[in-house]
Amino acid sequence: MPAPGRTAADLAERLLAGDKRALARAISLVENDSPEGWALVREVYPKTGRAAVVGFTGPPGVGKSTLIGRLIEDGRAREREIAVLSIDPSSPFTQGALLGDRIRLADHFLDPGVYIRSMASRGSLGGLSEATLQAALLMDASGKDDVFLETVGVGQAEVDIIDHADTVVLVLMPGSGDSIQALKAGVMEIPDVIVVNKSDHPLTDTMVREIRGVLSLGPQHGWRVPIVKTEASRGEGIEELVERIVEHRAFIEEHGTLDERRRRNLQSEVVALAAARLRRRLEAHVHDDESVQAFLDEVVARRLDPASAATKLLERAR
Amino acid sequence: MPAPGRTAADLAERLLAGDKRALARAISLVENDSPEGWALVREVYPKTGRAAVVGFTGPPGVGKSTLIGRLIEDGRAREREIAVLSIDPSSPFTQGALLGDRIRLADHFLDPGVYIRSMASRGSLGGLSEATLQAALLMDASGKDDVFLETVGVGQAEVDIIDHADTVVLVLMPGSGDSIQALKAGVMEIPDVIVVNKSDHPLTDTMVREIRGVLSLGPQHGWRVPIVKTEASRGEGIEELVERIVEHRAFIEEHGTLDERRRRNLQSEVVALAAARLRRRLEAHVHDDESVQAFLDEVVARRLDPASAATKLLERAR
Repeated sequence: MPAPGRTAADLAERLLAGDKRALARAISLVENDSPEGWALVREVYPKTGRAAVVGFTGPPGVGKSTLIGRLIEDGRAREREIAVLSIDPSSPFTQGALLGDRIRLADHFLDPGVYIRSMASRGSLGGLSEATLQAALLMDASGKDDVFLETVGVGQAEVDIIDHADTVVLVLMPGSGDSIQALKAGVMEIPDVIVVNKSDHPLTDTMVREIRGVLSLGPQHGWRVPIVKTEASRGEGIEELVERIVEHRAFIEEHGTLDERRRRNLQSEVVALAAARLRRRLEAHVHDDESVQAFLDEVVARRLDPASAATKLLERAR
Repeated sequence: MPAPGRTAADLAERLLAGDKRALARAISLVENDSPEGWALVREVYPKTGRAAVVGFTGPPGVGKSTLIGRLIEDGRAREREIAVLSIDPSSPFTQGALLGDRIRLADHFLDPGVYIRSMASRGSLGGLSEATLQAALLMDASGKDDVFLETVGVGQAEVDIIDHADTVVLVLMPGSGDSIQALKAGVMEIPDVIVVNKSDHPLTDTMVREIRGVLSLGPQHGWRVPIVKTEASRGEGIEELVERIVEHRAFIEEHGTLDERRRRNLQSEVVALAAARLRRRLEAHVHDDESVQAFLDEVVARRLDPASAATKLLERAR
């Protein structure tokens, strides 16, 4: 018999009431791919969809976490409840940080209106993007006004995650030449808002001009992507950034884009969840079945081609 | 009845004899996910494993294609047969190029000892990495000494592809700050050889120093990653780059790393092929089955959670 106060229904109730410890426990369940975690998401799912989900992406070292720290301060001043989910392995939320960053972030950890959580890029049992998206749903259900997702924007898993934000903010800094080239070449998708952080750098205006040049190549109708200069470590430009994020949300609500985006994202999430489960079954099979190892050896010896081996694997795993 | 000279056995024979048109046709079959293409790879697979597969990755605009063009010239002078497979959407091999580049590359297109092929980043019917790897096997079977893979190194598909090279060359240029940060943060894997192209730039030595700093943080035993300065547009530094690539191959052959890498890569390829097939079946199901669309609508309406919808989808698609 479960201990009093520990039943699933009770956990759901406390989560919906905004209890921070219930939220932490719920996310751990999801992260460990526990059936209880999935059941919980199922129960609270009807209460989701209220939070504004903002994704922050960009190369490591541009100051995404410091920027998010400032946005938390700003949001708290306006009495908004905020959750942050970081899956950037280089983020101070996730692991090592400069001492100064740690101290600044520590304030937020103690604030009952703020919940910060990191997830390892690898090793989430149920697959990174699945766990992240479930965690974001739990944050939403717990009554947070804003859910901030922080990703490094390199791998496909990170891109899948950021795709689920209502508003995507790309953070760059002077020297982010590779990202500019990737935007220009169409290899990286155009975000909703672009931030040039560390704007006390002498090359900031050059960078802003380069970004304008890239944006001018794209479609000129609909939402015009704003470029905001910030100096997050000193809190400069934060108000303007907040305004732009709020404007973007108003724009997508007014034009029906929010519903459209969420529909597309939820549908692709369902397919991704199902595909990830199939893949995990397959991997378990490779791991457990010795005969599979035998025909994989044949592939290495060039006696059996990879595609035929894949067919054999699918037959065995059926 | 197939036309004379068009049967599968004949195509395999011509491919193995190094016929360029047979290779082109074979790759198209694989790209179109045709059963004939898979049968062909099956037939020629025992003849693969001879080519040195070198992957070139790096942000768009650093000059990977120009560099590869120079390496082709160098290899041809040493009578090596070369194939290039480009899946960088920003590459001049793939699409638009400066007029000068086009003219330089055109020479190689006419050379019977060189085969250049590009693949679209999206839209390959059988999945990008699967098609690419099959194409690389076909190039190998057709007797090429070198197979060069060019990718932009952003998405997971591109990383999967580059993982299958025996030697990975990361190409940067002065201004590649984001890539340096990604290496430093451990978000991007350390390659086997690093090139700083466009080395007539005044900041080249600063960039080389930064890279040295990053490399010094890693393990100091085994292969020491060389940094080569090139100015590909003028052909400078190419000889040294060739030497380093050859040295790396000698090193991994001597230390057994080549066999180890290929074993790991072939095995993960089999799992990836199988998983991609399962995912395609799932997507076809979503597309064809109207009842699936009905419960996806329930997800959007927040009446059915994504994980339960995924379970239902797996039941239907069984």
